[in-house]
Amino acid sequence: MAKDVESDHPPPAFSAKDYHDPPPAPLFDLDELTKWSFYRALIAEFIATLLFLYITVLTVIGYKSQTDPAACGGVGVLGIAWAFGGMIFILVYCTAGISGGHAVGYMAAQCLGAICGCGLVKAFQKSYYTRYGGGANELAAGYNKGTGLGAEIIGTFVLVYTVFSATDPKRSARDSHVPVLAPLPIGFAVFMVHLATIPITGTGINPARSFGAAVIYNKDKAWDDQWIFWVGPFIGAAIAAFYHQFVLRAAAIKALGSFRSNA
Amino acid sequence: MAKDVESDHPPPAFSAKDYHDPPPAPLFDLDELTKWSFYRALIAEFIATLLFLYITVLTVIGYKSQTDPAACGGVGVLGIAWAFGGMIFILVYCTAGISGGHAVGYMAAQCLGAICGCGLVKAFQKSYYTRYGGGANELAAGYNKGTGLGAEIIGTFVLVYTVFSATDPKRSARDSHVPVLAPLPIGFAVFMVHLATIPITGTGINPARSFGAAVIYNKDKAWDDQWIFWVGPFIGAAIAAFYHQFVLRAAAIKALGSFRSNA
Amino acid sequence: MAKDVESDHPPPAFSAKDYHDPPPAPLFDLDELTKWSFYRALIAEFIATLLFLYITVLTVIGYKSQTDPAACGGVGVLGIAWAFGGMIFILVYCTAGISGGHAVGYMAAQCLGAICGCGLVKAFQKSYYTRYGGGANELAAGYNKGTGLGAEIIGTFVLVYTVFSATDPKRSARDSHVPVLAPLPIGFAVFMVHLATIPITGTGINPARSFGAAVIYNKDKAWDDQWIFWVGPFIGAAIAAFYHQFVLRAAAIKALGSFRSNA
Amino acid sequence: MAKDVESDHPPPAFSAKDYHDPPPAPLFDLDELTKWSFYRALIAEFIATLLFLYITVLTVIGYKSQTDPAACGGVGVLGIAWAFGGMIFILVYCTAGISGGHAVGYMAAQCLGAICGCGLVKAFQKSYYTRYGGGANELAAGYNKGTGLGAEIIGTFVLVYTVFSATDPKRSARDSHVPVLAPLPIGFAVFMVHLATIPITGTGINPARSFGAAVIYNKDKAWDDQWIFWVGPFIGAAIAAFYHQFVLRAAAIKALGSFRSNA
Repeated sequence: MAKDVESDHPPPAFSAKDYHDPPPAPLFDLDELTKWSFYRALIAEFIATLLFLYITVLTVIGYKSQTDPAACGGVGVLGIAWAFGGMIFILVYCTAGISGGHAVGYMAAQCLGAICGCGLVKAFQKSYYTRYGGGANELAAGYNKGTGLGAEIIGTFVLVYTVFSATDPKRSARDSHVPVLAPLPIGFAVFMVHLATIPITGTGINPARSFGAAVIYNKDKAWDDQWIFWVGPFIGAAIAAFYHQFVLRAAAIKALGSFRSNA
Repeated sequence: MAKDVESDHPPPAFSAKDYHDPPPAPLFDLDELTKWSFYRALIAEFIATLLFLYITVLTVIGYKSQTDPAACGGVGVLGIAWAFGGMIFILVYCTAGISGGHAVGYMAAQCLGAICGCGLVKAFQKSYYTRYGGGANELAAGYNKGTGLGAEIIGTFVLVYTVFSATDPKRSARDSHVPVLAPLPIGFAVFMVHLATIPITGTGINPARSFGAAVIYNKDKAWDDQWIFWVGPFIGAAIAAFYHQFVLRAAAIKALGSFRSNA
Repeated sequence: MAKDVESDHPPPAFSAKDYHDPPPAPLFDLDELTKWSFYRALIAEFIATLLFLYITVLTVIGYKSQTDPAACGGVGVLGIAWAFGGMIFILVYCTAGISGGHAVGYMAAQCLGAICGCGLVKAFQKSYYTRYGGGANELAAGYNKGTGLGAEIIGTFVLVYTVFSATDPKRSARDSHVPVLAPLPIGFAVFMVHLATIPITGTGINPARSFGAAVIYNKDKAWDDQWIFWVGPFIGAAIAAFYHQFVLRAAAIKALGSFRSNA
Repeated sequence: MAKDVESDHPPPAFSAKDYHDPPPAPLFDLDELTKWSFYRALIAEFIATLLFLYITVLTVIGYKSQTDPAACGGVGVLGIAWAFGGMIFILVYCTAGISGGHAVGYMAAQCLGAICGCGLVKAFQKSYYTRYGGGANELAAGYNKGTGLGAEIIGTFVLVYTVFSATDPKRSARDSHVPVLAPLPIGFAVFMVHLATIPITGTGINPARSFGAAVIYNKDKAWDDQWIFWVGPFIGAAIAAFYHQFVLRAAAIKALGSFRSNA
């Protein structure tokens, strides 16, 4: 083995990698339904999303309820952006290694968690919840739907691109600390996107977050704009996945090269 | 050994772990009273809590004394939230490895430290300390006791859940840097909870902090609400411990599985 | 080998280093034009600069559009400084290891990315983009050109000095985590310089950023001051490189010493 | 060796340590004056302190020049606290490993750097520098000298206690990443102390910083209060050193124990 590594011959295409890409996660896997780790992951996703919405929407409502036109009260929009980014930092740090890859079940658990988190805020902030917008994502006055959709697409791209870069198995192989440090840039990506797009859409970039707030707030405008916060994130995430896989990791080029060297 | 790892047989329940859970800390241990490390830990807890209250309550009072309705002065509620979160980050970083596990003595040392920290702020800020609320935790006007208790329960849950996840011995075994990095998510958890619940209770999630401020401030309202800042944190911490042990680490399921495989 | 290390004789001047300085990157290398990794790096630089300008300029415009003289709205200048610093943190973290060293091509890709990023902001913020200055770097009223140039020189020095210190191959050899952690001080350096010099020049310290905003904003003042944001950064970076190489790493002294011991 | 470790006998007092305390740095060492590394360290201290004062005082003056009573402009006191904490984070990160231990020469280089840094700010901000207090440390109106001195003592204690805890050689031996991570808690300690004591003294906790600003600002009040910013930090640092050495590391107890076991 050691000799092969030091030889001048290029290593064969498939054995040369010192890292392994995980196999693609199935969208739905019946076998998994019998395992405790699946239910545990569902619960963990539910709780994490509940806490995320509870903390962030409570920050939004608490801030608005303290602000009055004559003085500066509350944490400001900067504090709101920190709440979203900081919670993602904590929750990614805490749940890394718990959740596996059962996409459909997770999405449902997240939506349920988001509803419960917003429900708690409404219960705690009865007098202010509806008056101050319920933390729901809506297109702000003066922006058209194309702008809102574009803001969600690019915002999700920034987040998912960071997630892919920070958790890339190739990078982890080279440097074992990256996975531990990954929650920090991921949290900062969420913070950044909120700084930039709160004035436009309130920043969704997470369908479960937008859905949960819409269910509890339940006003026409939030439902009318809801599609933006599903279509935008899915397009943005898809572009980021394509960019990571086919440009940064050059999967297409490598496949071609491997085909040539084998032929 | 290496062969065993690659075999298809599930490893035996007790030898398979590459980590060890620390034995539970006794609530009271007479033997410990003769050791220097015990007194050192008491002093360290006392000093750390003193510094925590000194910095944070001084930030609160200094901010309020500078704010006037016509201009923006001081660090804002965001700055206050940073003070609490940042101090916890520093103090966890600095005292990790000093304090062992003598729960009753520590709680007393922390309360004493909190009283002294607030006493210093009162001495330094004579003209403002009482006028601006003394950094004491009270239920804000317009919120009922159930909301306050709920906010303290969930806030403490967020903190203790983060502490458990970040210092999990299973995780440390897998990745030795986690303990070193743990103070950052723990500090951020405190920051987040303050962003969200300062408008409701001023945020306690730490009985010693609430008690020390109440002693020095010493107004009826702070004492009337004091129970919330003891009952809430204890319930929240208990739920977090249960959640970590029985859901995330699945202790019950594992015990059952080990029983079955031994039978 | 092991014996040599333990001997008392001083090691020869050139073999004693346990790290290697990378060879200087050529300014232009025709050979590279045929490699995929070159185009990939160009694309990565383009996308990263696009995202940088999109997020930061959107934060600037969104903040200004929300502020009105009677109330506190928006993220504040502090939020703007965070946007610049935080994006650099993320992007350095994500693109480390992608970009190699083809200086001329990269600069072009960055300028193009900056133009597209600002173009997106203009498209999204039609009503506000031009009214609120387009995120363009200009000398503020009351400051002369010498001050603006000085602010850009020192600001770039702070950034480039941090980059050199944090990514020094000598340091990486001694401690393998430094490269992973490097994005954090680099991002903070950008944050700090923005806190200090936004009131003077809006803070450039990045010619592509200043150029892209000037192209889309396209007002006389931005073009008249443009040279400051090219000359300043180049002088500041050159001084930082000199300081790092000849003072901190003492290249001149070492070369002299090695000459003497060989003679 | 391995057998010894597993034996039940307590290890001998002096050989059991897996770390070494560095020898105390001499206050003045004539021999060192002939070495390049000494001059390099002086230059590095000079430049670092210059950059520190330049960025932080520029932030203070720029903030105050933008604030007007009717609107919220500038980075706020929170931004100023970030500037001080963030710069210390960067500079500790960058200069770690450069500076050795020649206390008298360093103090002189730092004071000179601080004067030059403030001089640059005065040159860049002619119209505002003196009007807005020059970033000088003074006791705020309404506080007596004892309070100011106390605030400086405790503030410096927080900083130096963090520095000792984060760079403790015992800790580094146990976990090699601590030194790399140390700049973060140290920077946060500075951030925290500024949040708390800017309203009282403007926060010194660094004699060179206070001295440099006083020299350039040069008003009576700054000079009258100057002693506070030398006496306070020295007392605070001395208490922190004593606390670390004799309480946390229990030097006295250990010496006694070693004496007993040898007797």
